[in-house]
Amino acid sequence: MIFRDELELRGTGETDAFDVTAEVAEVLGRSGVRDGQTLVFVPGSTAAVTTIEFEPGVVRDLKEAVERLAPRGARYAHDAAWGDGNGYAHVRSALLGPSLCVPVADGRLLLGTWQQIVVLDFDNRPRRRRVVVQIQG
Amino acid sequence: MIFRDELELRGTGETDAFDVTAEVAEVLGRSGVRDGQTLVFVPGSTAAVTTIEFEPGVVRDLKEAVERLAPRGARYAHDAAWGDGNGYAHVRSALLGPSLCVPVADGRLLLGTWQQIVVLDFDNRPRRRRVVVQIQG
Amino acid sequence: MIFRDELELRGTGETDAFDVTAEVAEVLGRSGVRDGQTLVFVPGSTAAVTTIEFEPGVVRDLKEAVERLAPRGARYAHDAAWGDGNGYAHVRSALLGPSLCVPVADGRLLLGTWQQIVVLDFDNRPRRRRVVVQIQG
Repeated sequence: MIFRDELELRGTGETDAFDVTAEVAEVLGRSGVRDGQTLVFVPGSTAAVTTIEFEPGVVRDLKEAVERLAPRGARYAHDAAWGDGNGYAHVRSALLGPSLCVPVADGRLLLGTWQQIVVLDFDNRPRRRRVVVQIQG
Repeated sequence: MIFRDELELRGTGETDAFDVTAEVAEVLGRSGVRDGQTLVFVPGSTAAVTTIEFEPGVVRDLKEAVERLAPRGARYAHDAAWGDGNGYAHVRSALLGPSLCVPVADGRLLLGTWQQIVVLDFDNRPRRRRVVVQIQG
Repeated sequence: MIFRDELELRGTGETDAFDVTAEVAEVLGRSGVRDGQTLVFVPGSTAAVTTIEFEPGVVRDLKEAVERLAPRGARYAHDAAWGDGNGYAHVRSALLGPSLCVPVADGRLLLGTWQQIVVLDFDNRPRRRRVVVQIQG
């Protein structure tokens, strides 16, 4: 059984972190799946999906870590060729990855108590961002 | 067909690397699944799952790399707010990610010869750590 | 329904990036699956799978970022023990990860317009590299 829906987020262009746990759980509830797997996938090459304890301190620490990984102010060949100015966002996205699989049991996501599903939008302009939530069970 | 079990690990608080390949293969064997997918997922926000050649040199090299990514002695907003002292562990966990999918054929994990499934526990205190192993086939 | 095939790549030993999107879509087409999930997995401990906008600028930026993460010229315990000289490749592989899940709808990969599936081969010698493509639906 496969059930799919999409979330829509609105990025500001300033490396946003969105806690989508409640929305993913809502899609899971509508699917009726009790045991299976949830795939969260972000189409696009300037965003990523992972999990964190979603509190302001960790969010800030993670943003600083990705800034060290691929600083916004550094020189990127992508920017030199295309003038997009978001080369840093492409690199961050590739390193963190666009997909996350979470097991489902008894109709619930098997996350830890302090573990939330987070979508990171690294792009340098405000934009709508689709996120695919797909349940298999 | 979905089969699920959990492993239990005991972290020391000093960035442990656990080779769980044999335990995952054992769960797969009990599932009876011949063709499908194995999801390894660690609930919690201070751990991660990936694969390495599990020999002491690579384990040490990987620990040094994550120490550079998010040094234990650096300042974290999470620690300033909560006093947990494990801000570094949260950042490492988010960057490496909590989930791994491995294909299954003929009842075997399609890993490389020198590739093992490894759970990394970054937390700063000894703790029990659950790992979810879920087989779909 | 599970369908599986393998791709074969030829790495040069100089951190190759392969756009495998067309090959993965071709496997998906042969599977006949309309709705489900595609798992791309690279067996081996010196490679990784992720997504990028596959244009030369981003490819170069990503290679430079992984060079900063785990420089080829640095000292690795793996190399000291085994003399392989590819300790950097092991660390990069563990940090980026060997698996990627992409949702499928209407027989198509739900990638973004500028998002390609890329296999990174970090090893330090020319080699054949197998990539497992598994469709569930």
